[in-house]
Amino acid sequence: VDEETLRSLLDGVRDGTLHPDDALRSLRRLPFADIGHAVVDHHRALRQGLPEAVYGRGKSREQILAVVEELLDHGTGPVVVTRCDPTVADELAVRHGGAVRAGATLVWRPRPPRPERVVLATAGSADLPVADECALTLFAHGWTAERVADVGVAGLHRLLARLDVLDGADAVVVVAGMEGALASVVGGLTPAPVVAVPTSVGYGAGLDGVTALLAMLSSCAAGVSVVGIDNGFGAACAVARLLGPAVRSDA
Amino acid sequence: VDEETLRSLLDGVRDGTLHPDDALRSLRRLPFADIGHAVVDHHRALRQGLPEAVYGRGKSREQILAVVEELLDHGTGPVVVTRCDPTVADELAVRHGGAVRAGATLVWRPRPPRPERVVLATAGSADLPVADECALTLFAHGWTAERVADVGVAGLHRLLARLDVLDGADAVVVVAGMEGALASVVGGLTPAPVVAVPTSVGYGAGLDGVTALLAMLSSCAAGVSVVGIDNGFGAACAVARLLGPAVRSDA
Amino acid sequence: VDEETLRSLLDGVRDGTLHPDDALRSLRRLPFADIGHAVVDHHRALRQGLPEAVYGRGKSREQILAVVEELLDHGTGPVVVTRCDPTVADELAVRHGGAVRAGATLVWRPRPPRPERVVLATAGSADLPVADECALTLFAHGWTAERVADVGVAGLHRLLARLDVLDGADAVVVVAGMEGALASVVGGLTPAPVVAVPTSVGYGAGLDGVTALLAMLSSCAAGVSVVGIDNGFGAACAVARLLGPAVRSDA
Amino acid sequence: VDEETLRSLLDGVRDGTLHPDDALRSLRRLPFADIGHAVVDHHRALRQGLPEAVYGRGKSREQILAVVEELLDHGTGPVVVTRCDPTVADELAVRHGGAVRAGATLVWRPRPPRPERVVLATAGSADLPVADECALTLFAHGWTAERVADVGVAGLHRLLARLDVLDGADAVVVVAGMEGALASVVGGLTPAPVVAVPTSVGYGAGLDGVTALLAMLSSCAAGVSVVGIDNGFGAACAVARLLGPAVRSDA
Amino acid sequence: VDEETLRSLLDGVRDGTLHPDDALRSLRRLPFADIGHAVVDHHRALRQGLPEAVYGRGKSREQILAVVEELLDHGTGPVVVTRCDPTVADELAVRHGGAVRAGATLVWRPRPPRPERVVLATAGSADLPVADECALTLFAHGWTAERVADVGVAGLHRLLARLDVLDGADAVVVVAGMEGALASVVGGLTPAPVVAVPTSVGYGAGLDGVTALLAMLSSCAAGVSVVGIDNGFGAACAVARLLGPAVRSDA
Amino acid sequence: VDEETLRSLLDGVRDGTLHPDDALRSLRRLPFADIGHAVVDHHRALRQGLPEAVYGRGKSREQILAVVEELLDHGTGPVVVTRCDPTVADELAVRHGGAVRAGATLVWRPRPPRPERVVLATAGSADLPVADECALTLFAHGWTAERVADVGVAGLHRLLARLDVLDGADAVVVVAGMEGALASVVGGLTPAPVVAVPTSVGYGAGLDGVTALLAMLSSCAAGVSVVGIDNGFGAACAVARLLGPAVRSDA
Amino acid sequence: VDEETLRSLLDGVRDGTLHPDDALRSLRRLPFADIGHAVVDHHRALRQGLPEAVYGRGKSREQILAVVEELLDHGTGPVVVTRCDPTVADELAVRHGGAVRAGATLVWRPRPPRPERVVLATAGSADLPVADECALTLFAHGWTAERVADVGVAGLHRLLARLDVLDGADAVVVVAGMEGALASVVGGLTPAPVVAVPTSVGYGAGLDGVTALLAMLSSCAAGVSVVGIDNGFGAACAVARLLGPAVRSDA
Amino acid sequence: VDEETLRSLLDGVRDGTLHPDDALRSLRRLPFADIGHAVVDHHRALRQGLPEAVYGRGKSREQILAVVEELLDHGTGPVVVTRCDPTVADELAVRHGGAVRAGATLVWRPRPPRPERVVLATAGSADLPVADECALTLFAHGWTAERVADVGVAGLHRLLARLDVLDGADAVVVVAGMEGALASVVGGLTPAPVVAVPTSVGYGAGLDGVTALLAMLSSCAAGVSVVGIDNGFGAACAVARLLGPAVRSDA
Repeated sequence: VDEETLRSLLDGVRDGTLHPDDALRSLRRLPFADIGHAVVDHHRALRQGLPEAVYGRGKSREQILAVVEELLDHGTGPVVVTRCDPTVADELAVRHGGAVRAGATLVWRPRPPRPERVVLATAGSADLPVADECALTLFAHGWTAERVADVGVAGLHRLLARLDVLDGADAVVVVAGMEGALASVVGGLTPAPVVAVPTSVGYGAGLDGVTALLAMLSSCAAGVSVVGIDNGFGAACAVARLLGPAVRSDA
Repeated sequence: VDEETLRSLLDGVRDGTLHPDDALRSLRRLPFADIGHAVVDHHRALRQGLPEAVYGRGKSREQILAVVEELLDHGTGPVVVTRCDPTVADELAVRHGGAVRAGATLVWRPRPPRPERVVLATAGSADLPVADECALTLFAHGWTAERVADVGVAGLHRLLARLDVLDGADAVVVVAGMEGALASVVGGLTPAPVVAVPTSVGYGAGLDGVTALLAMLSSCAAGVSVVGIDNGFGAACAVARLLGPAVRSDA
Repeated sequence: VDEETLRSLLDGVRDGTLHPDDALRSLRRLPFADIGHAVVDHHRALRQGLPEAVYGRGKSREQILAVVEELLDHGTGPVVVTRCDPTVADELAVRHGGAVRAGATLVWRPRPPRPERVVLATAGSADLPVADECALTLFAHGWTAERVADVGVAGLHRLLARLDVLDGADAVVVVAGMEGALASVVGGLTPAPVVAVPTSVGYGAGLDGVTALLAMLSSCAAGVSVVGIDNGFGAACAVARLLGPAVRSDA
Repeated sequence: VDEETLRSLLDGVRDGTLHPDDALRSLRRLPFADIGHAVVDHHRALRQGLPEAVYGRGKSREQILAVVEELLDHGTGPVVVTRCDPTVADELAVRHGGAVRAGATLVWRPRPPRPERVVLATAGSADLPVADECALTLFAHGWTAERVADVGVAGLHRLLARLDVLDGADAVVVVAGMEGALASVVGGLTPAPVVAVPTSVGYGAGLDGVTALLAMLSSCAAGVSVVGIDNGFGAACAVARLLGPAVRSDA
Repeated sequence: VDEETLRSLLDGVRDGTLHPDDALRSLRRLPFADIGHAVVDHHRALRQGLPEAVYGRGKSREQILAVVEELLDHGTGPVVVTRCDPTVADELAVRHGGAVRAGATLVWRPRPPRPERVVLATAGSADLPVADECALTLFAHGWTAERVADVGVAGLHRLLARLDVLDGADAVVVVAGMEGALASVVGGLTPAPVVAVPTSVGYGAGLDGVTALLAMLSSCAAGVSVVGIDNGFGAACAVARLLGPAVRSDA
Repeated sequence: VDEETLRSLLDGVRDGTLHPDDALRSLRRLPFADIGHAVVDHHRALRQGLPEAVYGRGKSREQILAVVEELLDHGTGPVVVTRCDPTVADELAVRHGGAVRAGATLVWRPRPPRPERVVLATAGSADLPVADECALTLFAHGWTAERVADVGVAGLHRLLARLDVLDGADAVVVVAGMEGALASVVGGLTPAPVVAVPTSVGYGAGLDGVTALLAMLSSCAAGVSVVGIDNGFGAACAVARLLGPAVRSDA
Repeated sequence: VDEETLRSLLDGVRDGTLHPDDALRSLRRLPFADIGHAVVDHHRALRQGLPEAVYGRGKSREQILAVVEELLDHGTGPVVVTRCDPTVADELAVRHGGAVRAGATLVWRPRPPRPERVVLATAGSADLPVADECALTLFAHGWTAERVADVGVAGLHRLLARLDVLDGADAVVVVAGMEGALASVVGGLTPAPVVAVPTSVGYGAGLDGVTALLAMLSSCAAGVSVVGIDNGFGAACAVARLLGPAVRSDA
Repeated sequence: VDEETLRSLLDGVRDGTLHPDDALRSLRRLPFADIGHAVVDHHRALRQGLPEAVYGRGKSREQILAVVEELLDHGTGPVVVTRCDPTVADELAVRHGGAVRAGATLVWRPRPPRPERVVLATAGSADLPVADECALTLFAHGWTAERVADVGVAGLHRLLARLDVLDGADAVVVVAGMEGALASVVGGLTPAPVVAVPTSVGYGAGLDGVTALLAMLSSCAAGVSVVGIDNGFGAACAVARLLGPAVRSDA
């Protein structure tokens, strides 16, 4: 399926160094490890340039511990755990030293610092957990996000006072709940790529983030793209895709 | 139900000038005219300070013509027709001279000009029909709205350049579709009452105005209140309520 | 962004008393305090005439305590905390004396009494927490709301018996869940501005307040405006906007 | 399935007058006529006491003509056609004399008048088509509904002035769109059974009748029951069920 | 508002036995008791023929105890408490003897038995709590419902085997969750009034009862009417309305 | 990706009869034809055992004509066109003789008759267009569906009278709109696989088929599976999958 | 209702060995046991070929214990309990030995192994509880599902590497949450019947499984059919229907 | 608001070459032209690097003609018109030569070709209008998209055969309706930035694109970002943002 692999297999078969049956078997045995309940994919970084990530919610303590151990022992790149139960997070931090942690997110082996400027704008302090997940995932990729916090559009002057930070950013992540208007305003102020993360923060008619999601998708600022509700991890991965996969900058 | 009426009825009964049976009958015959398919309420202005309005959609040509004739012939205050079929609107304009018309809205006998300043801000040119309905209804009450058009938040500088108009307004109506963020931004820039009108303008995820509606209801700007989708008429009536009913200024 | 500030800056620059670089810096340093996780905006009252408010839900104990301390120590106007966890509310009340409290809402330094009459009508006793949030926020602005409680439309006579209270009100807040019909009925009985607050009270098909919200937005009583579900705070702020910002009456 | 039929079949088999195979065949050939695309059920009146009804929408001209002809030629009870295309309705009226028609509804062979009093209250003139469908279906059952029209709750005095009609009604049908509050108010004013029909009339946030539907289902007036949006026919049938099936009064 | 009361007031005023001011005051003081947080309406039975009911959810222990005490001490008719917290229910049962209780529902002073036959059909055993609420409310009105339990349509023979119970019923309540098809099937088998209660029972795509609600409202069985999700109380009240208010049978 | 193809390619490369570059090229040129705007896949039948199908809606006349011509000229199996504009359907029928057509569906080169018994039950006559689409697609596979029409659950006896047809069916397709209860009832009466097709037929609260869809997914009859709204084609394909792909029976 | 029963009844009546009254009574007493709160249907296996199943959620401990005891003591076929509270499950396992259990699902008396190959593909490890419910229900029918786990479409090579398992399957169940794309991809790779089970796994915009449900119903792979969210039991029953009811293979 | 402008204004004021009043006026007169109903913003390209675009839907013929004339006569960069009525599009093409047009999209003065590789993958031929809007907007920016058409995931081999095109892309736009699974599959195959465009193409349960939208937002492929339904224009703008604004490459 990966063309280079296919070609080398084909070359081997032509050279007689590889029997067709073995080639066929190879095609099936692509590089991932089976640890019982989950298939761990050590080569995803090669294909997508993304660190291995473990989404903690809905997984048992045993599952999380096993997957993280596999990734840390047998992989070499960054490892990110998100939405992790606090006690499991504590246990992970004790078992595997060197973790950087913020709330429910943990990172091991972040990539070395990269030069691009990523700005992370948040509307209110209740959006911080999502922003932290995003910031830590960016950190795993090598970026230390520049934070512009508490700049909801009802106090526009706070945002305008920080225009210098927005200026020249290589990518901007906007994290906002309620009516999500910050994405439109920021999108209108910068030519940089803007990834909007709706959050489930809000009341009145926030519908657990659906309102912000719809508003961001309907943004009058052209070219703003959106990820799922509270998905700070996804926004960081979108940034990683657009700034070029970290794996390249490792080389 | 109207206490003064009740009291005068009761006084009449006490004085012997009104027989209880007649009082009872009076209680039932409150001041409205029955023209068959619709009960025309000539005294609504007295109760609510609002002009008589005819919502055209879903009414037959005959129904609209009859109600408007009743209102113009037997009432004295302003008459507003909204969402009127173009050919019926033409016919109305011909039959009853002196109408002011914008699109599907017509007004007869507007109240004399009032001094309060009402600002009408619209996000895009596709919001104009709703803004027109609002402006003409305001006009029927005596206000000529000051328009701030095409100031969607993706081009914030256009709005900021018109801050002098917002300043000192007695009421602001914000008409916006798509993500409806203009209501939040305006709400943050003025201490005046802000009535937000979501419009069905938009695409992508606008859901025919539901997104703007939800966003405005979730506004991070405190104290912004909202009317239904495309309801320019309702917003004008909300303004009329908060600036004091027009009937008072007539006195 | 505030024109007067802009002009005084410009005047300073012309007079040579202000260096352009300093002016530029001033433009960025608008009057708010950064306390780490939240930007506290001491001048919002000046811009919007609204007290500083802290929405407690989704904020940690530490965040709430820090923000309230900042507001009470360094601001001068009213402070409102809403949706506050009971134990944090207890701690706040102990730390900062003089709070007026109802359920999850606390107020310090309310403005002096104002003369306007604000009526607060509620449909049922389950709507009381929302009504209390509204009443206490109104109190922070200087109004003691006149309560008309338990007047749901299924018992119309209870509402009709209180018409004298509605009469002459400067503003009416209607708090109702279930089918929210009270807003329409009240809207038809008074020419005053009516702000409707749908509540999440209800069962059967109340959809956690969405039904009341939609019903109020579709009200057949023209000019009723609506805030988000359970948003008693927002309704009080809407009243504050329409009766003129409290800051003026302070002068 | 009809016990009497079952018993007579069983009796016939016991008596030897009916062979088991014939009984089995009879069980399958219950009294309906197959006219190709539709099974016409002549005995529904016997089972449910309801007239035969043809819902016109989504049926071709040919289908409607065939079913109506079958019902009129081979049945004896009332026939109701609803939501009929105007030209097909015209054709039906010409082909089969004696129809009573209102808009898209036609009735042939209504039952003789019945003594119960059925009140049909409508909120606005745009609700009339639904009310007409209901009234004509009631007429097919033998009732001439007493109309209370244009009594939306925003003008409460109009409804209160008609309380004498509500009084003593055997059943009340409430037809209302927008926020549907009329059902709650009427439900609170009468102990009679109240069947509420939400209509798709409305704008702003009416969602084509869903808002009125939800509001009526959430009514604070206990014991109000609801049928589907615009389903005037269904409401009439609900009335027929609760007043006792017409077939009884024929006897 | 009640015409007889109005007339007697008017007569009093004419006779000079009642001063207009007193009449006005009387109009306001209709028969309900104000116990602080809730207005207790002792005359609702007279107007609607329904017992006094207390919906427990969202009310504090103190509120429930006070309202029930008021109703039992100062009223004379049946009292129903629904959705009551178990410990509050225990306390109520201890304080006020003679309660009949099933789950979260309690009844005191039920009306004497009435002769009409009310059938209560339930689809599955998970629907029982809703059915119990309905049965106990019916009991308060004087009916002992005949239960047809566990007759979901996937096992049609179970329902067909109970046709004799359906036969001759004066009213049928159908309680069903999941796809709610039982209402349609029962509606097709009986000419009696059918009140359908959707329940929140279900999984897969039940949407907490919304699916059953929509399905019942879309029933192909004409004349089935519907109350809100899990609203067993409301269904019993609908039955009470259609069988004639209990207050009459007391006379 | 198809293992046999892969292996023969690999064998060719080993034998020297195929150059690796050619093999690579072959892997990319899997058996489909590119006709500009659409990739026509002649081998789908081999992979999935399904006929080639053209969904007409949203395609231009030119696109439909080109694709059908490609399929008829260069393929050999059955061809199905669904949701075809009437005039395009006429043109197709004229251009390419031998089509079997029902409404918007056309079939050419149906497979030879197969022995399995497929029953197609429909609730009402308005469901016929969807049933026709299903029946014709089944016909393309070799089955002539046995129709059980107009057996909606409100007239249960009509369904019970046709139990002999259901008995012994190899597969049953249930096509129903409104509340979709027919799927549950049929599912309870037969052990055969039941594929349910919700239709957009309905009114009141049918929500264009969403109600029937949700109801069928929530069916209390275990093992009923569902396809999309109005998707008669999909249901026929599901039947083809479960009875074994037609391509096998051709062999 | 079961024709053979009907016929034998009829034959008995003809022969005089059965009195019509007794026949009528027999028709009502079809083979199920009434244990108070639930009707246990011992013959469902005969009618539908499905084991008796107890859905645990919403049932009390007492109800579950009683029904399971009835089924195990008086029935003979497989018994499945799903969604069982852990402590009740423990108690059941102790009381009734020989249970096979996975999470909240328990099985007693599985049918003997059957030869058909059923593949169970899951997208991620969080989908395992649903997959387990499905696998255990399949096991009750006699199939040991072949698992293809953790093959979400974002890592396509993992699925392609398992194509040999898909190949030749008699039925495939796809269990996937999030965007549910696995069903479409699998549906395109196999001609076998595919039953898709959306799960409530997901975040961002998963809406508790609704997104996966809608996506699977909209699958571009023709003939994929769908059961409700998280309904592993239902999918297993659908497989049982399509592979022929287990009861036959017992014979 | 634009800092450089601010500074030059301030410098002018300091130098005495600009009077404060003029500076203030300048601040308000930011570079846009007011042509009555719409504010045309000639400098948006400078701020956001995007061409001027006119969204045709909801605008009158006159409005579109005026705006386009203004943009072509007084601007210099690319002009894009989308969703344009065919007859207006014809008129525009005649009036203003040199337009490149595809369906409802027109482009004048595209930027010179840029070297980055943008791949545009579409699931089916019905998605072409959206893909065309995207392609033409990309073309206005200087990119000729490489098309990978008709590669829906149900025919996975078609996509796999085009892997060489995906390989090395600088950005990928995925346009897909129905279940939108193509975005997940492509996202898993490439490390490049992926912008997903859900389309309103689909049937069964596509909900006019909402299903594809939700599915793409829930994608199991990390870092895929999404724009609104059918918003090909927005996706192109998102690509322009992430590849660096075109205005830079012009320099």
